[in-house]
Amino acid sequence: PKLLLLPGDGIGPEVCAEVRRVAAALTPDIEVTEAIYGGASYDAHGTPLTDEVLAMALSADAVLLGAVGGPQWANAPRALRPEAGLLKLRVEMGVFANLRPALCFDALADASSLKREVVAGLDIMIVRELTGGVYFGQPRGIETLPDGQKRGFDTQVYTTSEIERVARVAFELARGRRNHVTSAEKSNVMESGVLWREVVTELHARDYADVTLEHMLADNAAMQLVRRPTQFDVLVTDNLFGDILSDAASQATGSLGMLPSAALGIKGKPGLYEPIHGSAPDIAGKGVANPLAAILSFEMALRWSFGRGDIADRLFAAVTRALDGGARTGDLGGTMTTVAMGNAVLAELG
Amino acid sequence: PKLLLLPGDGIGPEVCAEVRRVAAALTPDIEVTEAIYGGASYDAHGTPLTDEVLAMALSADAVLLGAVGGPQWANAPRALRPEAGLLKLRVEMGVFANLRPALCFDALADASSLKREVVAGLDIMIVRELTGGVYFGQPRGIETLPDGQKRGFDTQVYTTSEIERVARVAFELARGRRNHVTSAEKSNVMESGVLWREVVTELHARDYADVTLEHMLADNAAMQLVRRPTQFDVLVTDNLFGDILSDAASQATGSLGMLPSAALGIKGKPGLYEPIHGSAPDIAGKGVANPLAAILSFEMALRWSFGRGDIADRLFAAVTRALDGGARTGDLGGTMTTVAMGNAVLAELG
Ligand SMILES: CC(C)[C@H](C(=O)O)[C@@H](O)C(=O)O
Ligand SMILES: CC(C)[C@H](C(=O)O)[C@@H](O)C(=O)O
Repeated sequence: PKLLLLPGDGIGPEVCAEVRRVAAALTPDIEVTEAIYGGASYDAHGTPLTDEVLAMALSADAVLLGAVGGPQWANAPRALRPEAGLLKLRVEMGVFANLRPALCFDALADASSLKREVVAGLDIMIVRELTGGVYFGQPRGIETLPDGQKRGFDTQVYTTSEIERVARVAFELARGRRNHVTSAEKSNVMESGVLWREVVTELHARDYADVTLEHMLADNAAMQLVRRPTQFDVLVTDNLFGDILSDAASQATGSLGMLPSAALGIKGKPGLYEPIHGSAPDIAGKGVANPLAAILSFEMALRWSFGRGDIADRLFAAVTRALDGGARTGDLGGTMTTVAMGNAVLAELG
Repeated sequence: PKLLLLPGDGIGPEVCAEVRRVAAALTPDIEVTEAIYGGASYDAHGTPLTDEVLAMALSADAVLLGAVGGPQWANAPRALRPEAGLLKLRVEMGVFANLRPALCFDALADASSLKREVVAGLDIMIVRELTGGVYFGQPRGIETLPDGQKRGFDTQVYTTSEIERVARVAFELARGRRNHVTSAEKSNVMESGVLWREVVTELHARDYADVTLEHMLADNAAMQLVRRPTQFDVLVTDNLFGDILSDAASQATGSLGMLPSAALGIKGKPGLYEPIHGSAPDIAGKGVANPLAAILSFEMALRWSFGRGDIADRLFAAVTRALDGGARTGDLGGTMTTVAMGNAVLAELG
């Protein structure tokens, strides 16, 4: 089994180093390779994702990203920005279903900006469509009008099959959880939202009538994620709403530094794993970043790409115990270094 | 001076009745007229907004809406749904700048799902573009593809002048506040976002260099509104992001039942005022809805359309004192009726 690590930029290399140590301790049979990506790749090769690295990604069992981007590439041509490498990787790997758990570890319930009683026991799985919508829709561009004004435009677009396959993932996940799916869109103002609601409703009636389905407008979902986040089990939504709603939900969990994600495509194809957090240029290189989002992304890879649910459970339990034992990096109000947090998890793994 | 009240559906009539009482007490010279709108108008006239009512709106100094929509109109033809009447009113009135204050009354700091220390002193002004973007962009539709699949699409589009005029409102407001504007978009993935950032940056350099300008990606803004909402002063953003971000911010204030809004267009034209909350079918007709969002919408009308900032200040102070005195409807954890809350405000007005 092969894991491709793409540490990328900013704090990416630091947190990925901890993933390496955990992987070496836990699953020595997994072959870990590393490659250059993002701003680092742009600097070295003039592109955030080379064909060689893309080929490596497609032939691995799982790809784990550290972080991508930073202010030094803000003026790179748009098509060559670090983020463009990320979008290309998502599309080329065909990972249309982005699983973003928002989970509140009991030990961290006080670290949230929300009240303890609002977040205690929180366990949401956001399923974000990742390879469609306004991120990729054509036509798009900026044109100059006859009167000299500019006009910037994008196309939000979804087809029946794009909606159906991601909704299917959500319903399947719900069956292994609390059997409840909330589908969010703006069907009151968007045509793509009308189709989204229609397709999810039909799929539900056809194949998943045993799961409770609720439709919620995206603005209301944003509010409910802050008001009473524990009402959600699985939340399925499109690429853009998923981007925003998962960031809003992240604060219920105490810190963005805790949040992993998995992006899955067709069965048997490699999955793409990445922390939700960015490259955090302000703390990059200081060895103080929280490596748990990256470590938990590896936990998701064990579960979804390597078929090692048992080992994933062990890793998850070790992280929980480390937190229960008081392990805290700066984002969690503590003073631990990145390496010390890695050590705490390794110690709990025994 | 003329105020057109459009109570609309659900709790709209109840909360608007309190506005009438406050207006009668405070500004007897303002002539208040009432007309039918929304689902109620659809039932009576087959359209959520008749030409007569639109003409009345255009010839008033201000229009105040109660609430619109409800489950009973879910199957009305899309172009005739209550919400369509709202969108038409916004466009026909040309009210491109939607001011949505998110303000935490001290007496309500404990009613929020966020910690008291996170919301105390909160005073954000969200300026949402209201007549453009994906809400109105063409082309849009649902088409059937040769293989029988459907394809739903919308167009997100902004021109230089649309961005500039709403950004100008944000900068002007900031000058009377804490002199800080945050502009939110997804310029890392959307062309309209690239233009948005460019136009705001240029306008700032040209006319508002004295105001601090910060650009923030919309997903990060959603997170920051939950993590540390007090970092914001004025937040300017597009129609869709504004819809979502203002709902996320609403929870910092304790209750959606508290939040007013103003939509302004060209100087001298009537403004459109409405509570942020919906029609709340679950409590409609029970006389328990919080009328403060509607009353505070009237307060905004006094300030922005009737040129009565002094009277608006008095009304705002009366609402604050009523809350300080313990007045609470159900949404605020109390048991007061709609009328009792209206009485509490009237009593403070003396
Ligand atoms: C970096 C950016 C392109 C990306 C996105 O918008 O998808 C990020 O915000 C995310 O959520 O993974
Ligand atoms: C009712 C709906 C069309 C409306 C919108 O999306 O603008 C509402 O959510 C709002 O925020 O005013």
